[in-house]
Amino acid sequence: MKLTEANTDRLLALKDEVTASYGELKARNLSLNLTRGKPSSEQLDLGESLLALPGEGDHTLADGSDVRNYGGGDGIREIRELWADVLGIPADLVIAGDSSSLNIMFDLISWSHTFGNNDSERPWSAEEKVRWICPVPGYDRHFSITETFGYEMVTVPMNEDGPDMDAVRELVKDPLVKGMWIVPVFSNPTGFTVSAEVARELAAMETAAPDFRVVWDNAYAVHTLTDEFPEILDIVGLAAEEGNPNRFWAMSSTSKITLAGAGVAFLNTSEENLAWYRRIAGVRGIGPNKVNQLAHVRYFGDADGVRSVMRKHAGILGPKFRAVTEILERRLGGLGVAEWTRPEGGYFISVDVVDGTARRVVELAKDAGIALTAAGSAFPLKNDPNDRNLRLAPSLPPQEEVEVAMDGVATCMLLAAVEAAEAVGATGSAAAQPASK
Amino acid sequence: MKLTEANTDRLLALKDEVTASYGELKARNLSLNLTRGKPSSEQLDLGESLLALPGEGDHTLADGSDVRNYGGGDGIREIRELWADVLGIPADLVIAGDSSSLNIMFDLISWSHTFGNNDSERPWSAEEKVRWICPVPGYDRHFSITETFGYEMVTVPMNEDGPDMDAVRELVKDPLVKGMWIVPVFSNPTGFTVSAEVARELAAMETAAPDFRVVWDNAYAVHTLTDEFPEILDIVGLAAEEGNPNRFWAMSSTSKITLAGAGVAFLNTSEENLAWYRRIAGVRGIGPNKVNQLAHVRYFGDADGVRSVMRKHAGILGPKFRAVTEILERRLGGLGVAEWTRPEGGYFISVDVVDGTARRVVELAKDAGIALTAAGSAFPLKNDPNDRNLRLAPSLPPQEEVEVAMDGVATCMLLAAVEAAEAVGATGSAAAQPASK
Repeated sequence: MKLTEANTDRLLALKDEVTASYGELKARNLSLNLTRGKPSSEQLDLGESLLALPGEGDHTLADGSDVRNYGGGDGIREIRELWADVLGIPADLVIAGDSSSLNIMFDLISWSHTFGNNDSERPWSAEEKVRWICPVPGYDRHFSITETFGYEMVTVPMNEDGPDMDAVRELVKDPLVKGMWIVPVFSNPTGFTVSAEVARELAAMETAAPDFRVVWDNAYAVHTLTDEFPEILDIVGLAAEEGNPNRFWAMSSTSKITLAGAGVAFLNTSEENLAWYRRIAGVRGIGPNKVNQLAHVRYFGDADGVRSVMRKHAGILGPKFRAVTEILERRLGGLGVAEWTRPEGGYFISVDVVDGTARRVVELAKDAGIALTAAGSAFPLKNDPNDRNLRLAPSLPPQEEVEVAMDGVATCMLLAAVEAAEAVGATGSAAAQPASK
Repeated sequence: MKLTEANTDRLLALKDEVTASYGELKARNLSLNLTRGKPSSEQLDLGESLLALPGEGDHTLADGSDVRNYGGGDGIREIRELWADVLGIPADLVIAGDSSSLNIMFDLISWSHTFGNNDSERPWSAEEKVRWICPVPGYDRHFSITETFGYEMVTVPMNEDGPDMDAVRELVKDPLVKGMWIVPVFSNPTGFTVSAEVARELAAMETAAPDFRVVWDNAYAVHTLTDEFPEILDIVGLAAEEGNPNRFWAMSSTSKITLAGAGVAFLNTSEENLAWYRRIAGVRGIGPNKVNQLAHVRYFGDADGVRSVMRKHAGILGPKFRAVTEILERRLGGLGVAEWTRPEGGYFISVDVVDGTARRVVELAKDAGIALTAAGSAFPLKNDPNDRNLRLAPSLPPQEEVEVAMDGVATCMLLAAVEAAEAVGATGSAAAQPASK
């Protein structure tokens, strides 16, 4: 029976029951954490051999150059080819950098802001304002970048097949709309994947701004939770086919494949975009850490090596994700108090609870010793207008902790929903409807 | 006898002699290179063990955190303490980053440009213009950064004890003068070192701009060519004593200590400056490569380990530098056709040839198969107003090649000087005076 259909007596009884459960939960004095999209120690152990790679005596590349010395702003050919093979794209359109793709994204926007990019009529800083399309829920660190540059962030819904294209197409008629964030595969936090159709629409659509860019952050390109790998679109090639070769800055990295924060990040984009990037990157520095890039080549061996590692990650992460969705189903299924995604990859599960209760759920969980990511985190300026979205990150804690924490979180969600239903009953307000999409 | 005192007959005889030498030089079909301030393979071999560090099983820090995972924007405590010990500064005022200090310098200026720094009344981009003090000869990559941001670069002479402070003090009365480059120890390319007195004057002077910054690029802090290490000034502490705690952004790195381009870079500055930097760096990314930082801790052991490595570098580099100055002395001494520095550290030797002949020397050398850094490279916009400065980089080639190349370069310098003296004789022009300082 749905909670909204319960009569007052039933609600009161349910409240007593859930309040008691919550009391028991608090009494356990837990200290659990579902906030961080970080790999677990067990996952990091998969990359342990990297700590001794490339190894003494192994420092010469196929072209005869020495990874220990300066030079080579594009990164070493070996890792660019290996990664291009993973993504199914031309190695010439891939630059391998230091460890963080977020660094590259920040720089791309910063340099467009200060200098304009290769298609700009003027620097973005010289526009009266800059607007940026943000599919929501989305990745908080993306939004922090555009917030830092003072851009007005305009949200569009992130659907199961990608951003709402009707909304996007309407927005890009505005020449001040200069860009858009998107995590195309196993999106943060929904796990949704942009379909080939939506990708082509993004590539083909007309934009008023000639220097409009989609930051195509393919952070989870190979991060499956099953035995299947998703199709990886050659988005840069697709955009070229559609006559907009410079549209996408496509990012990826090995951070959640090998070692978080010590992997290799990649930029894939058009030749013209790369030329623009290189010109400024070549002033900013002499080149990336090539020793770490060679270590990664030795660790992976080839593209199959990457997929082989990812299957092992899936073996560790899969059960945690399944535990989360199974517990949500068992505890909350059919009650109409929450809807959640069932990702087949990535690092997060997105839950929509009863409108107006997300903050309350986080508060209840915190009081019970379970840290959840702050409500609203998946929205620009951390502002979820419905106060209903929660991002769950089950990767870091051990399996048992994930299960204990999620059972507790389900209790909190239920209690918050009962409180909200009671408030509706008391005031006749329609504010606290269960989430629906 | 000085060339300027030679009569026409003597000059003609000398010209015949030098022209013959130059002909012999060309006939050798050399292919030598003195352009690059890169360590040699022999030097890089000193850091070979880093390729297998920190090693499997070694990933936990004293504070219990795991270098393989995300987090720790300041870098690991272990390397910050070790490096602070090397520099004689507080570890709390040191941030350890990725491999490139140039990256950090670019970002400091870029972010001051876009957002203003912690002492700015407005972003530097909002000023009518920005001026920047450039001691010359100086480091080309510094100048490229300020050029890229469109700053007007104002030169001051780099003397043996540091920048000409009368000129600097006059310039900083202008509120549009926002900063200054300086390599304080074994400066690029002169090898000059800023004295404690000049450093204190820089720290103490009044500047019209409240957000004025000195980029104190201590790239060669421990890079001795002898058995002696230079005194390292705690420039940030000194500035605090003088009431200008935020004046210096002090940079350093292990790039020419361990592996070039795969070392660890450091920012040392005031608490307030660090807070400002962290706020933006924390948006740009999640933190530096901590695995590489731990590898460096294991490699060095402690501050003495750093000095021990540097003595080995000195053993390799010292003879090359001595060969350069000995050959210049033997071939050109007393002729009044060139003046050169005799660095006790660093990576370069600066030579002033006869005014108006630097480009000619590079051209002659090139035709003889010896690559020299382009004339003017050590000046903003590559513009040496006297066309007299050359930067020699003897680190990369083997000892024997350095000697052969330098002997050839001396021949080129002499030939260019004779040509110039002849032109003076022919025209009575005073343009081609020997360099003097």
